Amino acid sequence: MKIESVDLFYLSMPIVTDAGDGSQDALMVRVRADEFTGWGECEASPLTSIAAFVCPMSHGACQPVAASVLGQRVDDPKNIGRIGASLALNSMDLLQAMHTWSGIEIALWDLLGKKLQEPVYRLLGYERAYPKLPYASQLFGSTPQETLELCRNAKQAGFKAVKCGWGPFGRGSLKEDADQLIAAREGLGPDGTLLIDAGQIWGEDIEAAALRIPLLEQVSAGWLEEPFHGSAYEAYAKLADRSRHVPLAGGEASHNSFMGRHVIDYGKVGFVQIDCGRIGGIGPAKQVADHAVSRGVTYVNHTFTSHLALSASLQPYSGLQAHRICEYPITPQPLVRDICATHLKLDRNGEISLPESTGLGIEINVEGMRKYLVDTELKAKGKVLYRTPQL
Amino acid sequence: MKIESVDLFYLSMPIVTDAGDGSQDALMVRVRADEFTGWGECEASPLTSIAAFVCPMSHGACQPVAASVLGQRVDDPKNIGRIGASLALNSMDLLQAMHTWSGIEIALWDLLGKKLQEPVYRLLGYERAYPKLPYASQLFGSTPQETLELCRNAKQAGFKAVKCGWGPFGRGSLKEDADQLIAAREGLGPDGTLLIDAGQIWGEDIEAAALRIPLLEQVSAGWLEEPFHGSAYEAYAKLADRSRHVPLAGGEASHNSFMGRHVIDYGKVGFVQIDCGRIGGIGPAKQVADHAVSRGVTYVNHTFTSHLALSASLQPYSGLQAHRICEYPITPQPLVRDICATHLKLDRNGEISLPESTGLGIEINVEGMRKYLVDTELKAKGKVLYRTPQL
Repeated sequence: MKIESVDLFYLSMPIVTDAGDGSQDALMVRVRADEFTGWGECEASPLTSIAAFVCPMSHGACQPVAASVLGQRVDDPKNIGRIGASLALNSMDLLQAMHTWSGIEIALWDLLGKKLQEPVYRLLGYERAYPKLPYASQLFGSTPQETLELCRNAKQAGFKAVKCGWGPFGRGSLKEDADQLIAAREGLGPDGTLLIDAGQIWGEDIEAAALRIPLLEQVSAGWLEEPFHGSAYEAYAKLADRSRHVPLAGGEASHNSFMGRHVIDYGKVGFVQIDCGRIGGIGPAKQVADHAVSRGVTYVNHTFTSHLALSASLQPYSGLQAHRICEYPITPQPLVRDICATHLKLDRNGEISLPESTGLGIEINVEGMRKYLVDTELKAKGKVLYRTPQL
Repeated sequence: MKIESVDLFYLSMPIVTDAGDGSQDALMVRVRADEFTGWGECEASPLTSIAAFVCPMSHGACQPVAASVLGQRVDDPKNIGRIGASLALNSMDLLQAMHTWSGIEIALWDLLGKKLQEPVYRLLGYERAYPKLPYASQLFGSTPQETLELCRNAKQAGFKAVKCGWGPFGRGSLKEDADQLIAAREGLGPDGTLLIDAGQIWGEDIEAAALRIPLLEQVSAGWLEEPFHGSAYEAYAKLADRSRHVPLAGGEASHNSFMGRHVIDYGKVGFVQIDCGRIGGIGPAKQVADHAVSRGVTYVNHTFTSHLALSASLQPYSGLQAHRICEYPITPQPLVRDICATHLKLDRNGEISLPESTGLGIEINVEGMRKYLVDTELKAKGKVLYRTPQL
């Protein structure tokens, strides 16, 4: 079948704050071919990713994303990889292209799964999808007491693992960080898996990060995530050498599969975190999962948005039984809930399972989306390049 | 002084083709503070980079570039680095941000140089700027005969070094590539430095690239540039090990200083090529130049646009006498010539020198730009976010 249309929908909460909460807006992608419709989601600034789709060509290696996608044939998984490879050449100098392409690539897998009557994980070569143990992904509270309550609530909601990140962590004194960590552990209880996300706060300052290692050991943290800039592999490797009990986690910034491999090989992380909405979609994420297996590193999804994005992000490692945990945003904005009519809910074991239905197995809630739709228009060279399409 | 305004101007040739010619459009940046005006240039898709400047905030780590720049103080070089560091956190999840910031950063150095009455290279800590030996940077001809004539013309124009890239190279047979290389050498003559740019054509296929090494040795090529995807460091390193006489060159895709360092440390290139219009400007480029010196690798600019961009791209290694060659586009589109009133011309030795005047030392030709100005408008959330400003 031939890709007939790719439509991008910018959704937003009425008010967007500067909290580290990535669920405040979304860029949804609808792809149509024959009688099928696939949906995907970009993890990126919606307006900028729309611009990357429609912008006028700058030269042969700086073409808009649309140029490599519209009209292409998609009949089997290899076709999706081929479009991705041609895009990498045609849009080589358009940095944002990979974020835009990510959502389209996801939608193409959804479309192809519907056409071939298979869930995406089977198209990726997995026999079955194993249940994952979701960790409740949330921001640190502004006070230790608030963090304690957040972790206690997550535990009471059935989560056996919790991640606290961003907020005040790493921005104040060692004592303040210690108080936050102890509060998180207290709220979660002694048995739960506690994960800590530093949100790149130390840039490439290894000593600042190393000072927190004893605190992290004290609360038996399962990992320290993104202590440094996403490309600071040398700093990651040096800190990994100095942290015997707390492995590092990172990789969410990867915008191609090479970068996902590098955070493993050069950065020496114990957990590689891939966002399908950034790395170029499900195909490149699967390549990183394969590489992680070959290196004895654990693959984890990075997801902070809708359950469509969540389903997409689980597919690349759904068949890897030993790679057990997954990110699961616990307090997303209403927007993110309203995008989907079906959700991946915790079962009695506190686990989630991928849908067995075709494609990504998530039913989209078009009516739910409508109230968040942002009217958007881009004009250049005397033409309307983009105007919010009909939902 | 306080940054009062940042204005972005999208310029374009009336017709843009899919040739690998990056001089067909441009995004110029004008920064104003006190009575001073600085100019910079982004090497990127203009519409997408404008969107990254004005887009609505998605969350605290996905803010528009404008949020980290407008109203900030710039009184010494450290302030520029500080704005860059805050942008790296505030716009962490906005991939295009670094391309947009690059042009602004360049304009801030120009501005600061004018305010402090110094050329930029002195603000970077260099005592003097050494002349560079420009290589004529051009595309392969569509036939060997055309390539021969292009190289002969470059030689006759006074160039002692020539680079041929893109076009048919690597896309056809080994024999066709051999014919192109032999023609280039013939046109340039036996003494000139011949550089070859593969434009990432082999992805990460080491064998395909290795097949061309004997041909490159035969014509005494000075380097093989970008055989692979910009992030395929493993492939670079493996090819470098197999190519004893022809060093590799790469790094133009780097969009932070880490990546520039990685292409040296992991990719084992002999020449690191940095585009100031992509890496985050002059400051991060200087960091890569320092790293190159420490590793015995030669730094080279990557520039295919105006002489404002050329001046910016030379500053980071202007004080490094041994890093002698520089990229010099020989057949740019008229747009690129008309942006500047002053140009860096070849002297009687076939060398170019940075201007000794303040800032980047390039006089902007506002009238020249005007005829290429693209009327552009971005609207979202009921607001006009961008409309082409007054030149």
